[in-house]
Amino acid sequence: MDRLACYDCGETYAFGDAVRCRCGEPLWFEPDTASFDWSDASGTTGGDATLGRDTLWRYDSVLPAAAPTGFAAAAGGTPLFRAPSIEPTDGPRIHLKVEGVNPTGSFKDRGTAVGVCRADGPIGTVSHGNMALSVAAHAAAADREAVILVAEDTPDSRLAMIAQHDPHLFRVRGDYGRLYRDTVDGDLGAAFLNSDAPLRVAGQKTVAYEICEAFAPDAPDAIVLPVSSGGQASGVWKALRELDAAGLLPSVPRIYLAQAARCDPIARAYRRGRSRVEPVEGEPTAAVSINNADPPSGNRALAAVAETDGGVVSVAEEAMIDETDRLAADAGVSVEPSCAVATAAVRELATAGEFDAADDVAVILTGSGYKYGPSDPDTASVREVDRTDVPAAVRDAVS
Amino acid sequence: MDRLACYDCGETYAFGDAVRCRCGEPLWFEPDTASFDWSDASGTTGGDATLGRDTLWRYDSVLPAAAPTGFAAAAGGTPLFRAPSIEPTDGPRIHLKVEGVNPTGSFKDRGTAVGVCRADGPIGTVSHGNMALSVAAHAAAADREAVILVAEDTPDSRLAMIAQHDPHLFRVRGDYGRLYRDTVDGDLGAAFLNSDAPLRVAGQKTVAYEICEAFAPDAPDAIVLPVSSGGQASGVWKALRELDAAGLLPSVPRIYLAQAARCDPIARAYRRGRSRVEPVEGEPTAAVSINNADPPSGNRALAAVAETDGGVVSVAEEAMIDETDRLAADAGVSVEPSCAVATAAVRELATAGEFDAADDVAVILTGSGYKYGPSDPDTASVREVDRTDVPAAVRDAVS
Repeated sequence: MDRLACYDCGETYAFGDAVRCRCGEPLWFEPDTASFDWSDASGTTGGDATLGRDTLWRYDSVLPAAAPTGFAAAAGGTPLFRAPSIEPTDGPRIHLKVEGVNPTGSFKDRGTAVGVCRADGPIGTVSHGNMALSVAAHAAAADREAVILVAEDTPDSRLAMIAQHDPHLFRVRGDYGRLYRDTVDGDLGAAFLNSDAPLRVAGQKTVAYEICEAFAPDAPDAIVLPVSSGGQASGVWKALRELDAAGLLPSVPRIYLAQAARCDPIARAYRRGRSRVEPVEGEPTAAVSINNADPPSGNRALAAVAETDGGVVSVAEEAMIDETDRLAADAGVSVEPSCAVATAAVRELATAGEFDAADDVAVILTGSGYKYGPSDPDTASVREVDRTDVPAAVRDAVS
Repeated sequence: MDRLACYDCGETYAFGDAVRCRCGEPLWFEPDTASFDWSDASGTTGGDATLGRDTLWRYDSVLPAAAPTGFAAAAGGTPLFRAPSIEPTDGPRIHLKVEGVNPTGSFKDRGTAVGVCRADGPIGTVSHGNMALSVAAHAAAADREAVILVAEDTPDSRLAMIAQHDPHLFRVRGDYGRLYRDTVDGDLGAAFLNSDAPLRVAGQKTVAYEICEAFAPDAPDAIVLPVSSGGQASGVWKALRELDAAGLLPSVPRIYLAQAARCDPIARAYRRGRSRVEPVEGEPTAAVSINNADPPSGNRALAAVAETDGGVVSVAEEAMIDETDRLAADAGVSVEPSCAVATAAVRELATAGEFDAADDVAVILTGSGYKYGPSDPDTASVREVDRTDVPAAVRDAVS
């Protein structure tokens, strides 16, 4: 369980001996899953079997950490349901995996939970969003120190949300991309659970285990998700490789990644048929959580797409905003624009003939839209009325 | 399953024939649970068994609605874990039931899910907070019209959050308490899923089913929760009555309710040994979600406490704020002050000798603190640092 491997050159390392491969690419844990079966999923929550429900620890036999008790035991186990109301005409069946229903409101809790259970000492991360909040909260719950490094322009409202969990919180002046590499390369006295840390990727893969188990013995035709650093895409691909090795997939789902057109380095490399991602000069976008111009696991994300015969989609800003509104108004699910980009991509892929009505597509909605509020607050639909006029106004509205 | 009963005078009605009892008290569904056993809990999610995890529909045999597919199938099934870090010295074991991990971030989704699956036509509610958001989202997901009536002073940020789900949204000038009664008494062309609507209370009771099943064949010594209208307290009491009738409780957990001292009509009646709640002139409090000066199910909440030998606690404003901070910083759980009032009450009850170290206390944390952000945003702990100084600053912080 403690073997790390490079997806690209195949080099292996013992956990703790390396953070990235000598070839430059990120590593991941390489458990032997050839004999894994769904019956190995334990059906209990962590080590606290009397007090909980199924969570990601259902898959502890393929994870590099033992099932915990407490807050970390609560990560994962999110709902998955079909949403016919947002399916395009003649398009695929869309199944929403709602990751906002995690303890800190995003998919990041999966990797953090596994990380905090395995890493010793203080834990840290470079993030100003979902990952920062997740690491700060899990550290607080585990009575561990947390080091959170945020960019200079992080708004105070986000800082306050992170600060409530009482981490060591630093607002850092300077190049954010280099700051990321500093924490990977240097010894800062804390275990940095960054987007492509092997412990995090091991936790993130469980979302695909959950999706595939829900469809077993069948499998979805495709899994669609937003991509930023490439860490979550790596996790999904890792899960599919492991489940394929175990003989549990009748066919391997195609992985499709979605980016905002204003900052789409992985999509650009895909369109050009490249296997290496080049940094871009991104523009500001409402998809703040995936606004990553130099993704550290970008090459691995490209490989996930290539190996599964999937694709990468650039979504225009307006289509992404429209899709955010559609998910809330028609599917009841409030998400960040950074998530809506994934169902918007399904719409484009259906139009392009990549999906048809017989396809089952699972879409990972990575985070809750309630946490930061609507990106475009709109109260124009609110009607003002006197109490005595309510009955007539309501009857008129619903008639 | 369709019999409604009054807890107080015993009168019964068929569902649809009455909203409240002739005696003035609220009604609830009265299923026959004498032969219910935990093995009747189905272990599947709703009618969509291949696509999901355990949720409240595990208990569909005691609910007035059939298990659905889609968004409504995702309500409930929230984590429950022990939080030693916030337990008072020599006090009880505290088990947190984290209801913020529901599709719209609060416990209200339980009642809404059951309501939307059973009520025909448009659905509505009188609320400016968690219930409004929940009803709006579930209606959107089910392709149903929603009517949301909010008070005149509801801030635009909350309205925008509700408005994204595209309900008929009315900001109403006039007496909010009378508005509530208008929707109960009148025919407005929508099924109002207010706090004490029998369908809502049936859904809300499932949180206590989950808590008790987690402890089975034992039971917690007490269940502690915030109280506002008294609807959730009614639901918890109903569940305990049903499980007791089924012979599944070795002893009935005591129900303790917590209010903010600035608006505590139920606590006042309790202190005076009354069985009827009188309206109060409340003061503004940070516990906005439970700031209810004239609770429609207040008498039933008092009865729940009296019948289970529990109590009602008034919590001072400062203790409640401190407890909100403690839950985030020491337990990793961000909640509204309206939730923290419940663990603050545990602290006071332990000091008063009402609990001891041998007791298991389950605390219902009703909603996520991320939704509205920290009530007292504080970024004083943030340190500014240049990138090149990060290694030294981090090593210094964690040493």
